[in-house]
Amino acid sequence: MAKITFVDVTLRDGNHTYRHQFTPDIVSRTAAALDAAGVDIIEVGHGDGLGGSTVHVGRAPVSDIELIKAVTSVVKRAKVGILLLPGFGIFRDLEAAAEAGVSVARVASHSTEADTTEQHIQKARELGMFTVGYLVSAGMASPELLAEEAAKLESYGAQYVNLAESQGHLVPSEVAARVRAVRKAVSIPIGFHPHNNLGLAIGNILAAIDEGVTYIDGSLKGFGGGAGNAQTETVIAALKRAGHEVGTDLFGILDAAQTFADLVAPQPMPVIDNDSILMGYANVYGGYVHPVKHAAKHYNVDPRELIIRLGKRQVVAGQEDAVEDEAQKLARETHLKAA
Amino acid sequence: MAKITFVDVTLRDGNHTYRHQFTPDIVSRTAAALDAAGVDIIEVGHGDGLGGSTVHVGRAPVSDIELIKAVTSVVKRAKVGILLLPGFGIFRDLEAAAEAGVSVARVASHSTEADTTEQHIQKARELGMFTVGYLVSAGMASPELLAEEAAKLESYGAQYVNLAESQGHLVPSEVAARVRAVRKAVSIPIGFHPHNNLGLAIGNILAAIDEGVTYIDGSLKGFGGGAGNAQTETVIAALKRAGHEVGTDLFGILDAAQTFADLVAPQPMPVIDNDSILMGYANVYGGYVHPVKHAAKHYNVDPRELIIRLGKRQVVAGQEDAVEDEAQKLARETHLKAA
Repeated sequence: MAKITFVDVTLRDGNHTYRHQFTPDIVSRTAAALDAAGVDIIEVGHGDGLGGSTVHVGRAPVSDIELIKAVTSVVKRAKVGILLLPGFGIFRDLEAAAEAGVSVARVASHSTEADTTEQHIQKARELGMFTVGYLVSAGMASPELLAEEAAKLESYGAQYVNLAESQGHLVPSEVAARVRAVRKAVSIPIGFHPHNNLGLAIGNILAAIDEGVTYIDGSLKGFGGGAGNAQTETVIAALKRAGHEVGTDLFGILDAAQTFADLVAPQPMPVIDNDSILMGYANVYGGYVHPVKHAAKHYNVDPRELIIRLGKRQVVAGQEDAVEDEAQKLARETHLKAA
Repeated sequence: MAKITFVDVTLRDGNHTYRHQFTPDIVSRTAAALDAAGVDIIEVGHGDGLGGSTVHVGRAPVSDIELIKAVTSVVKRAKVGILLLPGFGIFRDLEAAAEAGVSVARVASHSTEADTTEQHIQKARELGMFTVGYLVSAGMASPELLAEEAAKLESYGAQYVNLAESQGHLVPSEVAARVRAVRKAVSIPIGFHPHNNLGLAIGNILAAIDEGVTYIDGSLKGFGGGAGNAQTETVIAALKRAGHEVGTDLFGILDAAQTFADLVAPQPMPVIDNDSILMGYANVYGGYVHPVKHAAKHYNVDPRELIIRLGKRQVVAGQEDAVEDEAQKLARETHLKAA
């Protein structure tokens, strides 16, 4: 049975569900409840991390630093963390976060582009932060490739590597294979951040822990991108039931879930809808849902078939031109068949 | 990789979520969509099975037979099934169901009381129905005890044994242990019916299949008692992703999910709320939620502590007197501590 460090990402990844409109009041009161429950690390900020507030991905009503200060000013036991995607976030953001009391920096890249994180990992280390290499869309890389990228993160100075399975695509045996490969390649701890598109967030967490993962991400009420994250309060209950050791108290985390739900009401919990299932099944990033629907309508093709094709093409965020291209191809084929 | 027979229980277990108010129109149109998607068995009726419509558990607007006929009249490929708890349902109900075109009878008892099903299993066999022994609250029996009970069901003539993990309490390793034990004790196939209280419905299904389960239950949009069942459309996607063979089509089942959601709108999907988590964690039947809240208020004790105690006492449905008893004990202890 493992000793698990729990990282709550409600106030960062959960911001996606709330269209990045978290206020200092929401994050402050939620963080206080998470802290009281004994959560180890509380991540806060725009859903896309430091500097994520843009017209393109969603404008926040307040700055990252205001949100951070609302959390660091109330938290007594937990460490406070941020996510940083180099490009969105810059050195100055890291410095400001450290100054505002943030002591955990998770530096993210697509799962096959760890080399984009080197400078920011080093910078975070220089600032004295507990520094994490964070691989997004870990289900899009083979176990071998993921292991290579994880080894790079360790060489840059990352103090643990977090595997974010952003599309909720993997089944437990596939998660296990990836963790096994990474464990052989690095000597730092491994973390896991699942999404729930195929209803496997909790099942995959238990499988990951069986292979040696010791850091687990979750969010209250499952708030988070797509079908949402592993639901923190459910994770804690499941970890305890499975006999793992976790510093978070069950009744305390249920209280935190209630506090948070009241603060964001009437915003409902994420559920697994048809879009989520299809994106998870096809391994396509949730940001493609709207471009796909638009193109499918324009070209009069089945949006579901289009998603399956984009999955086979292994598109990543930022390659939305592929939607138009695949929609045209699909339209031609559909037209030929019909003729 | 396994070949899975899929049993959709939306129109029976899902009736709990709809307070047993399914109409012939809802079940008929949903069944047609499930049938078109290639689901193997469609179970229909009151949430508590044949004869379940009572003032105590919930009055249905129409008879079991009306619901059954609304399904058998439209289904072309799938078999139509019913659940029967001896006591609620009697021989005459089975005969009427068979006459209305039902060809699958699942005869249920608490996991440690298989002997209450013998006569009804034999009756269903005499009627020529495909007959299933169905063990409720399978997480309340040890693997060894469950194996003994399953062997009884086989000896009565059951053609497969279904393990219903009604409280959503078990983690994958515990499900695996139970399936392994049952598999050694019987030569008939094994089925699995999870609930999602700890977010493990799908994870537990994959673990159960790895140990030899070949019949899987689920319901559209997860409709069902407590935190709901395994969500059918998610199950199908996850089974396909895990490489298992299932006759149900993915796009077809997504269509069925949409059809059903539209028919029952604005009824939302079940979510995993604090009550569900606690009942799953403590392994207490969902019917205890309201008696517990009532007693906790009356005796001024923590309802959560009360639920944990009821779990330790291993209460089953019908033992609601235990709530009062435990609440009194807890009140005395709380009072002593405070004094």
